[in-house]
Amino acid sequence: MLTMQDALLALTRYWTGHGCMIVQPMNTEVGAGTLNPATALRVLGPEPWRVAYAEPSVRPDDSRYGDNPNRLQTHTQFQVILKPEPGDPQELYLGSLSALGIDAGAHDVRFVEDNWASPALGAWGLGWEVWLDGLEITQFTYFQQSGGMTLDPVSVEITYGMERIIMALQGVSHFKDIAYAPGISYGEAFGQAEYEMSRYYLDDADIAANRALFDTYAAEAGRLIDARLPVPAHAYVLKCSQAFNVLDARGAISTTERAQAFTRMRNLAHSVAELWAQRRAELGYPLGMATAAPSTAEAVTALAPSLDAPADLAFEIGVEELPPAEVTRAAEAVRASLAEKLAATRLRHGDITVMSAPRRIAALVAGVQPREDAEEQAIRGPRLSAAYDEDGNPTKAALGFARGQGIDVTGLRPLTFSGGTYAGFVKHVPGRPAAQVLAAVLPAVVAELRAERNMRWNASGLSYSRPIRWVLALLGPHTVPFTIAGIASGRVTRVHRTAPEPVITVPAAAGYLQALRAHSIEPDASVRRSRILAGAAQLAATAGGQIDPDGEQAVVDEVTNLVEDPIAIFGSFDISYLDLPAGILTTVMKKHQRYLPVRTASGELLPYFITIANGECDLDLVQAGNEAVLRARYEDAAFFWRADLAKPLEEMQDRLAQLTFETQLGSVADRASRIAAVAGGIADRLGLADDERTVLRRAAELAKFDLGSAMVTELPSLAGVMAREYARHAGEPAAVAEALFEMELPRHARDTLPRSRPGAILALADRLDLLTGLFAIGAGPTGSSDPFGLRRAALGLLAILRTHPGLSQLTITEGLAIAATLQPVTAGGLLPEDVLDFTGRRFDQLMLDQGHPAASIRAVRSLVDTPARAEQTLQQMAGLLRTPEGQELAAAIQRVRRILPGVTSLSFDPALFDSPAEHALQAALDKVSEAAGPDTDLRHSALTGPINDFFDHVLVMADDPGVKANRLGLLASVYRLAERYLDWGQLP
Amino acid sequence: MLTMQDALLALTRYWTGHGCMIVQPMNTEVGAGTLNPATALRVLGPEPWRVAYAEPSVRPDDSRYGDNPNRLQTHTQFQVILKPEPGDPQELYLGSLSALGIDAGAHDVRFVEDNWASPALGAWGLGWEVWLDGLEITQFTYFQQSGGMTLDPVSVEITYGMERIIMALQGVSHFKDIAYAPGISYGEAFGQAEYEMSRYYLDDADIAANRALFDTYAAEAGRLIDARLPVPAHAYVLKCSQAFNVLDARGAISTTERAQAFTRMRNLAHSVAELWAQRRAELGYPLGMATAAPSTAEAVTALAPSLDAPADLAFEIGVEELPPAEVTRAAEAVRASLAEKLAATRLRHGDITVMSAPRRIAALVAGVQPREDAEEQAIRGPRLSAAYDEDGNPTKAALGFARGQGIDVTGLRPLTFSGGTYAGFVKHVPGRPAAQVLAAVLPAVVAELRAERNMRWNASGLSYSRPIRWVLALLGPHTVPFTIAGIASGRVTRVHRTAPEPVITVPAAAGYLQALRAHSIEPDASVRRSRILAGAAQLAATAGGQIDPDGEQAVVDEVTNLVEDPIAIFGSFDISYLDLPAGILTTVMKKHQRYLPVRTASGELLPYFITIANGECDLDLVQAGNEAVLRARYEDAAFFWRADLAKPLEEMQDRLAQLTFETQLGSVADRASRIAAVAGGIADRLGLADDERTVLRRAAELAKFDLGSAMVTELPSLAGVMAREYARHAGEPAAVAEALFEMELPRHARDTLPRSRPGAILALADRLDLLTGLFAIGAGPTGSSDPFGLRRAALGLLAILRTHPGLSQLTITEGLAIAATLQPVTAGGLLPEDVLDFTGRRFDQLMLDQGHPAASIRAVRSLVDTPARAEQTLQQMAGLLRTPEGQELAAAIQRVRRILPGVTSLSFDPALFDSPAEHALQAALDKVSEAAGPDTDLRHSALTGPINDFFDHVLVMADDPGVKANRLGLLASVYRLAERYLDWGQLP
Repeated sequence: MLTMQDALLALTRYWTGHGCMIVQPMNTEVGAGTLNPATALRVLGPEPWRVAYAEPSVRPDDSRYGDNPNRLQTHTQFQVILKPEPGDPQELYLGSLSALGIDAGAHDVRFVEDNWASPALGAWGLGWEVWLDGLEITQFTYFQQSGGMTLDPVSVEITYGMERIIMALQGVSHFKDIAYAPGISYGEAFGQAEYEMSRYYLDDADIAANRALFDTYAAEAGRLIDARLPVPAHAYVLKCSQAFNVLDARGAISTTERAQAFTRMRNLAHSVAELWAQRRAELGYPLGMATAAPSTAEAVTALAPSLDAPADLAFEIGVEELPPAEVTRAAEAVRASLAEKLAATRLRHGDITVMSAPRRIAALVAGVQPREDAEEQAIRGPRLSAAYDEDGNPTKAALGFARGQGIDVTGLRPLTFSGGTYAGFVKHVPGRPAAQVLAAVLPAVVAELRAERNMRWNASGLSYSRPIRWVLALLGPHTVPFTIAGIASGRVTRVHRTAPEPVITVPAAAGYLQALRAHSIEPDASVRRSRILAGAAQLAATAGGQIDPDGEQAVVDEVTNLVEDPIAIFGSFDISYLDLPAGILTTVMKKHQRYLPVRTASGELLPYFITIANGECDLDLVQAGNEAVLRARYEDAAFFWRADLAKPLEEMQDRLAQLTFETQLGSVADRASRIAAVAGGIADRLGLADDERTVLRRAAELAKFDLGSAMVTELPSLAGVMAREYARHAGEPAAVAEALFEMELPRHARDTLPRSRPGAILALADRLDLLTGLFAIGAGPTGSSDPFGLRRAALGLLAILRTHPGLSQLTITEGLAIAATLQPVTAGGLLPEDVLDFTGRRFDQLMLDQGHPAASIRAVRSLVDTPARAEQTLQQMAGLLRTPEGQELAAAIQRVRRILPGVTSLSFDPALFDSPAEHALQAALDKVSEAAGPDTDLRHSALTGPINDFFDHVLVMADDPGVKANRLGLLASVYRLAERYLDWGQLP
Repeated sequence: MLTMQDALLALTRYWTGHGCMIVQPMNTEVGAGTLNPATALRVLGPEPWRVAYAEPSVRPDDSRYGDNPNRLQTHTQFQVILKPEPGDPQELYLGSLSALGIDAGAHDVRFVEDNWASPALGAWGLGWEVWLDGLEITQFTYFQQSGGMTLDPVSVEITYGMERIIMALQGVSHFKDIAYAPGISYGEAFGQAEYEMSRYYLDDADIAANRALFDTYAAEAGRLIDARLPVPAHAYVLKCSQAFNVLDARGAISTTERAQAFTRMRNLAHSVAELWAQRRAELGYPLGMATAAPSTAEAVTALAPSLDAPADLAFEIGVEELPPAEVTRAAEAVRASLAEKLAATRLRHGDITVMSAPRRIAALVAGVQPREDAEEQAIRGPRLSAAYDEDGNPTKAALGFARGQGIDVTGLRPLTFSGGTYAGFVKHVPGRPAAQVLAAVLPAVVAELRAERNMRWNASGLSYSRPIRWVLALLGPHTVPFTIAGIASGRVTRVHRTAPEPVITVPAAAGYLQALRAHSIEPDASVRRSRILAGAAQLAATAGGQIDPDGEQAVVDEVTNLVEDPIAIFGSFDISYLDLPAGILTTVMKKHQRYLPVRTASGELLPYFITIANGECDLDLVQAGNEAVLRARYEDAAFFWRADLAKPLEEMQDRLAQLTFETQLGSVADRASRIAAVAGGIADRLGLADDERTVLRRAAELAKFDLGSAMVTELPSLAGVMAREYARHAGEPAAVAEALFEMELPRHARDTLPRSRPGAILALADRLDLLTGLFAIGAGPTGSSDPFGLRRAALGLLAILRTHPGLSQLTITEGLAIAATLQPVTAGGLLPEDVLDFTGRRFDQLMLDQGHPAASIRAVRSLVDTPARAEQTLQQMAGLLRTPEGQELAAAIQRVRRILPGVTSLSFDPALFDSPAEHALQAALDKVSEAAGPDTDLRHSALTGPINDFFDHVLVMADDPGVKANRLGLLASVYRLAERYLDWGQLP
């Protein structure tokens, strides 16, 4: 059996064999191998660096006394840095798995999008989690920034989670059972330390001492930066970070403190990084300058081939695994770019088909003509009058022009251009050969690829979601020769990395798709999708179940773009886990594992799942691996579930008093009781019925209690979900349980909204308290920083008020006023206008996103205190303006608005009227005023005719000042009516 | 080339192959691999443990900005723990060298006594430095105590100094030039860190911050001990230690603080150790209980052979390399023990010869008789009167006795014992066979072996300087069968470990020595010594030089017992190093390297040395290795030498102000100026001549300046030596330079003493200031703790005052009084009596060690204020008491003393005398009183006759009270005279 120490040695051997230097772990506590200066500092600057090392990674927050089978306060990372990236880091990585005895061909090894960022260190990168049969075993990142500095060259960072890998390889289900070395288990070697360090981090660390340490370390780091010593400064930044993590694990860090501490650490880390880079430059870069990875491209010397007949184009951009969303987006982008760029040439062609898969974007262009069309081009010479003298002989100008164009002067003809007649000629411009055209178009398509998040990877300067590694470009049997960023186009493509022949040659464009499919690569997402659904359905059926393609659409879409060769694999889990709430089970399956749940015809969960592997593998092995992963996750969840169920709700609630919410705003318990009080105030305002009031009162008493549960502590995304479950199990009324769930809604932009009034009121109260409290202490969001999620809170507030019919009587201002009286701090005069303004700006953005014109949104902005009305008005206005009547009405009202001076009295006296149009307008005004409800609607169009008549027949600006004032008074009254609904001045 | 990382991997592979588990280095700074809990805690308790790991070891004090070729603030240890010791740890270790590609047969690998102790951790052990061609590459220790706890079982700790080993193997002379990994040097990888961390430790660490850290860490450790969490507590003890080391490197630690910090850390470390041991017991020893290493002994079933003729005995106790001093001591001890134990038997034998070498004590006993002598033993029965009835027939008592003894009653004879005549018989007791006798004697000899410092190594319970590994016991051709502590006696011995046949069988006692010598082992120290001298002289002669056998006696003696097969090897060093003071060169050669210097006939150093290897080796290789070691050491010294010479003396002196001596007593500069003042006071007291005064004044101005030099900072043992050198080079008068050297004398018990008066006065002043100051602040030594070396100071004081003729007018009390007035603190009434008492007790011990009887020492104790006089008196008394006259005089005086009651008037009136004896005594008293100088001498014996006559003829206790009082008054006056020299009451 491969022991853990064998595995560490195997990786050490493998990577030293690939040019890595070995260093020792950092001799101060670090949370990850990334923090070791061998990574954090060495990735900066131009020097090459290849290093590998084990790093015991301390995460005080993960302390579980050694009880949790998968979570440890100290786990072992094995860290590799390749700088610059070597061109084939994924292949090198797969080689290391093989060094661990892992047969990548038998297992399902996948690269699943995972981008990494450490705001505390000003560091980020794009890359993947590597999955081994569903288990995350490695983090693989193209490191883009560290210490706030952009990295050039980019480093590849590979981080193995050793305990997880070994548990999988040894088939053990608790870290303590890992065979660490011959005859000694992990538990025997490290069990006591795991328990005791957990005790320290969770229970016994002295808070005052660790705060003092934090400050001392930070001050020392600052001094050392001033002394221009980045190495010891970095060590002190790490010590800072550990002290912070200890405080955090002890629950001693409020959100404000967290933000402050992060700012402090980030600033220090940035200064250290800058200083390191400067110092290396001053030292003259002792390790030299990184040279670009050897280019795979030969200089393109081949001439573009000339064809005699139309041919198909096969164009494949080969990439490392794209994120699923980018797979789709890339196909669309390439299609559009190709079409547009070809259209700008005179090269005719047939249909463009673009398909995409994680590792490729494949464009097929049918019937590309051999050459561009030729063109007859009129070339303008001198004006005809200047081209020939009075004798009709060509002038010097004409002779010079003809010579310059290389034609005989006798070839000139009179040609008419706009503006006159000139001497000139019609030139026949032949088309370029197709390959030549494509050799210009195709690299431009590659170069323009952009994803939502882009990165560089090598000296080519290309920037895209993931590295581009090869380009196939075949026009019929010929390659279209070009070079893009060091990659030469060619006729090779890559199939499964574990295939006997991972790189294949394609003879001609026509055989491209067949070649891929012959090697089990399916480039067409719709085909993959069908295969997934069919395969999953078939396997589910063998177990008497089925898949819900609509319900699981999101995960099916994602998986479709995670594999190039979908293989459905059946798996099961112990039936006892079905005792857990379905929400937990499916969250874990879909969100964490991308599995499809198997259900009965009536939708009940069955103890099965379907996972989709990428390509042929050892089905039993992969099934067993995935089952083990799910079992571990469910075991975790079941542990928390049982632990929580054993506690009365009040016990969980009691824990809230120990969770700091914000230094000035008290504990989470304080916040929960404020939410309850705000909800009570809103209920009073709305005049709730007794039954609703009873539900609200009880739910408010229990507000947020599940934040004290083990499950939510572990899986914070289950807040609310668990409240509902635990409340139900504790015998609370269903409506109370539901309200507790609903108060957390919406959790994100596309989430559902509370349906019950008590739930909606609690949800409002939650957000009102949050906004009021944080604004009161001056902690509103700034720039991109929004640690308390106030933007999301404002959006939630709007969403509920916009949509919940039972809350229309409540204005935001009223709600904020209620919440403001309950805050433990006195607001600094900022309230509630600032919050309303902040919320209004969220509303604007929301409406913009829905396609409303900015002007229309501004026009209803005054109504935002009741967002439902503002939105309704906006929609009505949009509807109105789509009708001719509406447009006429608007024009009429704008005509009124424009004629009114700044200040106009609303008074008018019908006795002063001297035309029927004036009387008719007054009559219409009266009638509409009576009829008008709060909405802008077509009834107002009854005003259109009278207004227009008025302007046609009445001179507003009469010489008699009294008459003039009277007429303006009438118009002002009309506008006053219109203004009740819209700020017409904002409209064009 | 073996890179450093190759070497680490090779050791990892080797030791995992020998059952060691690998752990990661500690994730907080540690000074040595020992401090990692994988050693510090795991060696405690009964659980078995085998571990190996690399440990970056941080020594802030060794910071040199990366400039020093051999010294780093962080060096890499590779640490191995074998618990319990495996029985053959040295052989295992040699295997690991071979794994590093080191051919131990070609190199000179030696185990040189080196005992390890860390008072701060309450840890110690006995063992060796391992030398590779003169270079210390490994520390090898039998770990005896950790955290103040005695270890059972004992662990073997092997610590490789990786940088040194690699520098030697790669033949580079600066650590930065080490090939660390392919294509990257140590300097390239770690040079910047070495510089910056040095900057931090030496210049930039904030002292207040690190003091605060020390206190916080210590408090946190204490809390965690109370919470019974030894693992995190241990981590905080380590952090404490690092903070202390940082402060120390910054020069911020005074001696008092050091002592306090050590006490605090030691107490914490002890508590952690105890707690760990308790916790492991509570956990039921998860790793099980160590089983003793498999015994090499079969149960001894063989019967002792019987011989017919006398035979020789060869008896060899095989050990791991003994310290040189123990090699000699062991031979003497075995000789004495064997002689004594054999004398207690009736086994006759010839000469006993005992020889010894580092790995063996070899005893040869000639002509051992086949059996013990028989004995005629008188056995006593009943009293004769009770044995026979009146008829002469045996009684029941006689019959019963005879039956009990197994003889016929007719065999009884009348036998006279003291006190009467009995019936009995003479029993012939035959002697036991020789082998049987020896089988009892020899193991007892082994079991009784004791060294100055002893240790246990395995479950046998034996305790000796180093492990005993085999016992050879041959009587003629037969083995003497016995078992001692798991070792069976036999006929095998071990020769060179690298020999083709390292274990050989000896056929018979007679061939024992030949067998050893045939395998190049020389057990006879005198032979080895001769070979060393002859070999060295011969090699020296080839270079035109010679060795000074008398001058180098100490190192020759040591080397004689460091090797079993001395091979002299010639070496040279660059002639330019001869520019360095000879004292430095020879100190390094002899003290650090055990080399013999080569000199001209006139005693000038030549650039050569002789080293003595142990056994055949590759001479060129070993020479080159030793030369490289010496070169590195000289390069170091030359660097400091040049740096110091470039500075004026005042600049070095200025540094003293930055060195804290003691918190209350100020800086070293303060102390130096006090010494100058004390010296001035003494000079006044003694009335120095002008020329001496001039010398003294200038030397006092410069006192201790060399403590501010780089050389003394690096090599503190050169204090004084360097002062003399630097003063000379700076053009100071020779007498001043000499006085600066002499003021440091004596540096140890056998050191030379100051010869000049100025030097002696400064040396006194130094010690008087030290004693007075420390006693004044209550920091006198307690128990074994004497951080300021006050015992040594007092001994130095005594040595100078005892021996220097020019100081006899000074009493200690006077000196202390001068020093006391100069202290910056007010003494708490303790002075100077306490210091005098403390010094007096040192005097007692010194005299005891010189063989004076305790009573005699007590008798002169009152004279200790002038130690020269006290010692002189003591010697005179000893001389006196060796003569009959002296003994008679003493008896007479004691007779006088004993008759005198408690209080006696000294007055007497010759008019009341009524016998010539009284007059004669008075006359003798007057005569001796006049003649007597300050010494007790034989002139006093003029009193002997008159005293004895007086007692013979005069009744002291006369009836007449007046007469009686008069006689007592005369005797009291006699005694008063005698008492001026001795406290006779202390004598027997």
